[in-house]
Amino acid sequence: MAGWSTRRRFVETTAALSGLLAGCKRQTSAGVEEGPRRIGKPLRPYGERSEFEKAARALPTTKILEVGSSFTPLAETPGIITPSALHYERLHSGVPTIDPAEHRLLIHGMVDRPLIFTMDDLRRLPSVSRICFIECAGNSHLGYGRRDSPTVQLSHGLVSCSEWTGVRLGLLLSEADVQKSAKWILAEGADACKMQRSIPIEKAMDDILVAYGQNGEALRPEQGYPLRLVIPGWEGNANVKWLRRLKVVDQPYMTRDETSKYTDSMPDGTAREFTFAMEAKSVVTFPSGGQKLPGPGFFEITGLAWSGRGRIERVEISTDSGTWQDADLSEPRLPMAFTRFRLGWRWDGREVTVQSRAIDESGYVQPSHEELVAVRGANYEYHNNGIRVWKVNVDGTVTDAAA
Amino acid sequence: MAGWSTRRRFVETTAALSGLLAGCKRQTSAGVEEGPRRIGKPLRPYGERSEFEKAARALPTTKILEVGSSFTPLAETPGIITPSALHYERLHSGVPTIDPAEHRLLIHGMVDRPLIFTMDDLRRLPSVSRICFIECAGNSHLGYGRRDSPTVQLSHGLVSCSEWTGVRLGLLLSEADVQKSAKWILAEGADACKMQRSIPIEKAMDDILVAYGQNGEALRPEQGYPLRLVIPGWEGNANVKWLRRLKVVDQPYMTRDETSKYTDSMPDGTAREFTFAMEAKSVVTFPSGGQKLPGPGFFEITGLAWSGRGRIERVEISTDSGTWQDADLSEPRLPMAFTRFRLGWRWDGREVTVQSRAIDESGYVQPSHEELVAVRGANYEYHNNGIRVWKVNVDGTVTDAAA
Repeated sequence: MAGWSTRRRFVETTAALSGLLAGCKRQTSAGVEEGPRRIGKPLRPYGERSEFEKAARALPTTKILEVGSSFTPLAETPGIITPSALHYERLHSGVPTIDPAEHRLLIHGMVDRPLIFTMDDLRRLPSVSRICFIECAGNSHLGYGRRDSPTVQLSHGLVSCSEWTGVRLGLLLSEADVQKSAKWILAEGADACKMQRSIPIEKAMDDILVAYGQNGEALRPEQGYPLRLVIPGWEGNANVKWLRRLKVVDQPYMTRDETSKYTDSMPDGTAREFTFAMEAKSVVTFPSGGQKLPGPGFFEITGLAWSGRGRIERVEISTDSGTWQDADLSEPRLPMAFTRFRLGWRWDGREVTVQSRAIDESGYVQPSHEELVAVRGANYEYHNNGIRVWKVNVDGTVTDAAA
Repeated sequence: MAGWSTRRRFVETTAALSGLLAGCKRQTSAGVEEGPRRIGKPLRPYGERSEFEKAARALPTTKILEVGSSFTPLAETPGIITPSALHYERLHSGVPTIDPAEHRLLIHGMVDRPLIFTMDDLRRLPSVSRICFIECAGNSHLGYGRRDSPTVQLSHGLVSCSEWTGVRLGLLLSEADVQKSAKWILAEGADACKMQRSIPIEKAMDDILVAYGQNGEALRPEQGYPLRLVIPGWEGNANVKWLRRLKVVDQPYMTRDETSKYTDSMPDGTAREFTFAMEAKSVVTFPSGGQKLPGPGFFEITGLAWSGRGRIERVEISTDSGTWQDADLSEPRLPMAFTRFRLGWRWDGREVTVQSRAIDESGYVQPSHEELVAVRGANYEYHNNGIRVWKVNVDGTVTDAAA
């Protein structure tokens, strides 16, 4: 039995656990017997979490909450699926309220057959489901030049992973008969700011979803209800929410959100544009900033890894600022999805650093902060996929090692 | 590009879609231009679904809702993940309210080292996540002998699929030093009825989880908060919720819920006991009972397949009561998890039947209702995995073909 051999390995390598469990030897007959119990709560049509659970998205400290981001509590979300209620938000002009019966998707521009779809039209078409992450291009940017993100929620919480369901964008474009000279599409949202992003036609014909489903339900309002783009592996901002229009064009539109924002300032003063793919990244969620270890002994180091270039091939962990060892990767390891990693670890009570680095199927290795700065300079704000180093202090508290 | 070839195949085989899309050619400039939009709703710590979404678990029509089942709306849940809020419920004495800080798990009986775990103890141990279904042994039983389940929600809604996270039960038992003569464990819940089920030690040491996480959050209260067994592939009732006690024993306990219930009456008057595994099963969720097709044309037949014996290898669909064709299976196809199947279909407006059958990796083929009855007789109540046949009537309504 696999169980026994795993157990032997586990006990041999983690002597400290015996100490932990020895503390559990408190079984008495009083622990077994008890009086009658009261009948509990009834069946209900739509469930809620326990009143004892408090995990929440972190909100900005500004007064205006219609523009900004809220952060997924990564240290409190087990597995690889982010609950829809805790999926990070990025709002540019608030969450519009859209009646799906009134919503339309228009496809026009360089097509021979302009089309308007109702939600019923879209739901009737061949559908696709896939589990994939969406990450804001600005995720971790506070931790890049400036170091004021004391928790993994604030440093890395602008990434989440859901199961999305919808129609392949390529199918819709094909039905509209895209003209041969078309090179880009412009996607536009129904939010007040009319979010617009340009997307190359090759990607549009490849694996982009026009999604109406998220984690077994309709999209959540803040995720684009009733319709959004899901672009596996590409920066969140391009995954246009509240999608209402797709214009087929012959060049990028150079919209506000692809010129004044979401471009990457380089050391020579130029700016990289249309840097869509999110490179391989990982972060340790336990132990991570703001947590406190109760004392020396056995712990499981765990965290999340993802890559916009495909599957995560390997995650390495270092607890001594130097040598790396392979973490266990949970199945399924899906392309452009979260991969959960885990490694048993015995903390001896001394100050140590804990860090992870991801290697994806392309062979790309997640860089250190120093390696990133050497290439990009210190003004680089987006696409920060550098290694995050946590420090476990002698009192068990965990802090940002670079702070 | 995959997109183009898929498109060609799609258009060629589904001429009717052109008709559907032709109806969409209503693009006007008025469809593009519009006035200013209002700012939307702000960021919030914990999301809710749109006010326009109404999917709900179906409740029984009895007055007492602390005992009974609620059913997942399978026709309204895209993908393979069931939202925790819509996971089916099976209550024997209501949902207990448990403070996780007070909760304990006791392991005792034929062990050399009895143990009591707090939730903090358990969260510190090596963890595992896996996506798998849980199905009530009584799922579809109304549709077996008696035919009064007009919708797929009522006929098949006692099955759901989540990502579960927890500790391997085998690890906990090993740490307790199970004695060599131990053969079974007795699991007990903290609900008022003290739900008890006996489980063979071999399965307990294999792949059972002591789970505290569901779909990226803590378990939902009605799913056993804060702790439950998750037994991949085995009947739901044995996946004891609100888990408080595991007693290691040398024989099954013959509890109420494994003698008076959850046994299978055979034609010769005997009863099969401890029939844990849920055999391969599938059901078409669109088109399914209670739905109405708007008229002839292209549709996508879709549904779910699962097996307690491993992966789904193939799903076949028949729309003519005779010949079978392979459906497309979505990845990931995980063992003991939902597999989503899909097949494009052109309805010509005549009365037809639509049905699916699953084949799992063991080679087992989901049987017809008649094949099941021939073996089990008409009194068989649990483990009904027979094929469900839907009838599409000329007016587009969909009904149970056997009704």
